[in-house]
Amino acid sequence: MRKFLNDPADFVDEMLDGIYRAHPEVTFVAEDKRCMVTSKPKPGKVGIATGGGSGHLPLFLGYIGDGMLDGAGVGGVFQSPSSEQIYQVTKAIDQGAGVLYIYGNYSGDLINFDMAAELADLDDIRVRQVVGNDDVASSVVGEEHKRRGVAGVYFVYKAAGAAAAEGMTLDQVYEVAEKARLQTRTMGVALSSCVVPEIGHATFSIGEDEMEIGMGIHGEPGIRRTKLAPADSVIDQMMERIFAEQDYKRGDEVAVLMNGLGGTPLEELYIMFRRVSQLMAGRSVQIKHVWIGEFATSMEMAGASVSILHLDPELDRLMAAPANTPFFKHIAS
Amino acid sequence: MRKFLNDPADFVDEMLDGIYRAHPEVTFVAEDKRCMVTSKPKPGKVGIATGGGSGHLPLFLGYIGDGMLDGAGVGGVFQSPSSEQIYQVTKAIDQGAGVLYIYGNYSGDLINFDMAAELADLDDIRVRQVVGNDDVASSVVGEEHKRRGVAGVYFVYKAAGAAAAEGMTLDQVYEVAEKARLQTRTMGVALSSCVVPEIGHATFSIGEDEMEIGMGIHGEPGIRRTKLAPADSVIDQMMERIFAEQDYKRGDEVAVLMNGLGGTPLEELYIMFRRVSQLMAGRSVQIKHVWIGEFATSMEMAGASVSILHLDPELDRLMAAPANTPFFKHIAS
Repeated sequence: MRKFLNDPADFVDEMLDGIYRAHPEVTFVAEDKRCMVTSKPKPGKVGIATGGGSGHLPLFLGYIGDGMLDGAGVGGVFQSPSSEQIYQVTKAIDQGAGVLYIYGNYSGDLINFDMAAELADLDDIRVRQVVGNDDVASSVVGEEHKRRGVAGVYFVYKAAGAAAAEGMTLDQVYEVAEKARLQTRTMGVALSSCVVPEIGHATFSIGEDEMEIGMGIHGEPGIRRTKLAPADSVIDQMMERIFAEQDYKRGDEVAVLMNGLGGTPLEELYIMFRRVSQLMAGRSVQIKHVWIGEFATSMEMAGASVSILHLDPELDRLMAAPANTPFFKHIAS
Repeated sequence: MRKFLNDPADFVDEMLDGIYRAHPEVTFVAEDKRCMVTSKPKPGKVGIATGGGSGHLPLFLGYIGDGMLDGAGVGGVFQSPSSEQIYQVTKAIDQGAGVLYIYGNYSGDLINFDMAAELADLDDIRVRQVVGNDDVASSVVGEEHKRRGVAGVYFVYKAAGAAAAEGMTLDQVYEVAEKARLQTRTMGVALSSCVVPEIGHATFSIGEDEMEIGMGIHGEPGIRRTKLAPADSVIDQMMERIFAEQDYKRGDEVAVLMNGLGGTPLEELYIMFRRVSQLMAGRSVQIKHVWIGEFATSMEMAGASVSILHLDPELDRLMAAPANTPFFKHIAS
């Protein structure tokens, strides 16, 4: 196993220990390092919690900080955090204005966040939930509720985080997050598998010259596996699915997230973004915000995803707002 | 070849096209996309130029921006930019206060930056040069002039960039950069090779369960190849070489750069940083600044490096200063 680790069973806890040593801006509650919260709570602000399995840095915990999130439940590799962990985070970050949950559409997370919300309700903490489901490859139109949440949840974090920082109420932050969710679409492509530390071998096998369009970030099946095509053709195939659902046209404004899954060099992400930019220019669509890098990974998986957020003036303003977290910084434009 | 690209011959130019499309904060001069400069020159400020081969993003061009660098000559993959390209960048970024070159200790770069400095001299542009040589694996003590420049050049950029932003003169910025260079030491480890696009196969072979301590970022031989050890032992071996040269002790303050070479997940970098933190704590050395992520890569190479900068109050202040570049943002602490 080509990994820097000690005992695979300690992978998550040692990673967390490293994060707390590096970043005093975050801390933990309930004597559980997997209950991560900001060290700088903002009185009166709506709290935003997320959570999910480990192995996706900077998802999920990497976005805790100014202008973004307030806490995260940290699960084992590709496992949901427990309802108790999410509940402890919820209690810690509630400032009396309620808490919004933003997480991805996976069965374990759905169960545990629901249960945490019920526990919070007994404490009279108001909770609302937004479940990211941006991966267009994971179901047909009309069955969007079956779609997985992937890198596009970043846009939901950014919108909701900026809205909460502006002082919006829980219901207002929820509405903003829901709008961002509904306006976000993602397509991914994988060239190699990741290796779960405690398993020690590749989750799936794929040939050196193959790609799988639409594969999920845990290795869930995509929509087709073919010979690896030139980068422009890969992007054309990915964007075709997105354009089929949202026919962006002249005058539309979007934000683009060109995300690497962990093992793909930045150089290649820029080559891919170039093609996205050409396609948008061909439709006279303006790209107003661009983020390129690793925002949601699958450890060492080679691959990429492209997420498009359809902007309106409010989302445009929220995307431009500043953010300062250990893994993500944005300086207001 | 497991890469997202079109014609391998277009790898660098398409990458650059993607960068210019994404980041209007940078532009190019002399009608040559490989002559990258800031779009927001600061009148009167000392200019700072860098350059080197492509394939190391965010090195070198990714650090052009506020509080950092002003221009970069962009070479082919693992190739030096030409003297003409560096000269064109120099002319464009000179604001009358002179230009500092900061680059790594590679023969092609030495020749071309020297020649560019001579051309600039004919134009009465004053140039000084700092040549990064932080890789302790690449020569013994006493022959530091033979050492390669690797990720630690980041510290030299950060110090010099902040010094220039403060309004220091060329000689003052040079002195700061030289101090940062002399106080920076790096050790690397590689677990896999990169693939140069126009070559199409791995630069070297290394077993799935092997590591090479001290390998260079182009695959230059390291100091030993062994079976892959647990992460803590890998860091102990790397830090042993650094401590042998700089015996950090109680009261010392350092900055740490835990750098991924391209294919190593962030999770593993945090596990490695944890051990660096433990070793420094064991010596009662305070880590005042930490950066963890990809700062100098070798495309998809799995591996990591750790760089230590020994701080004094001036370097401490310069590390804390804000920076805003397409690939690197730092919010003043």
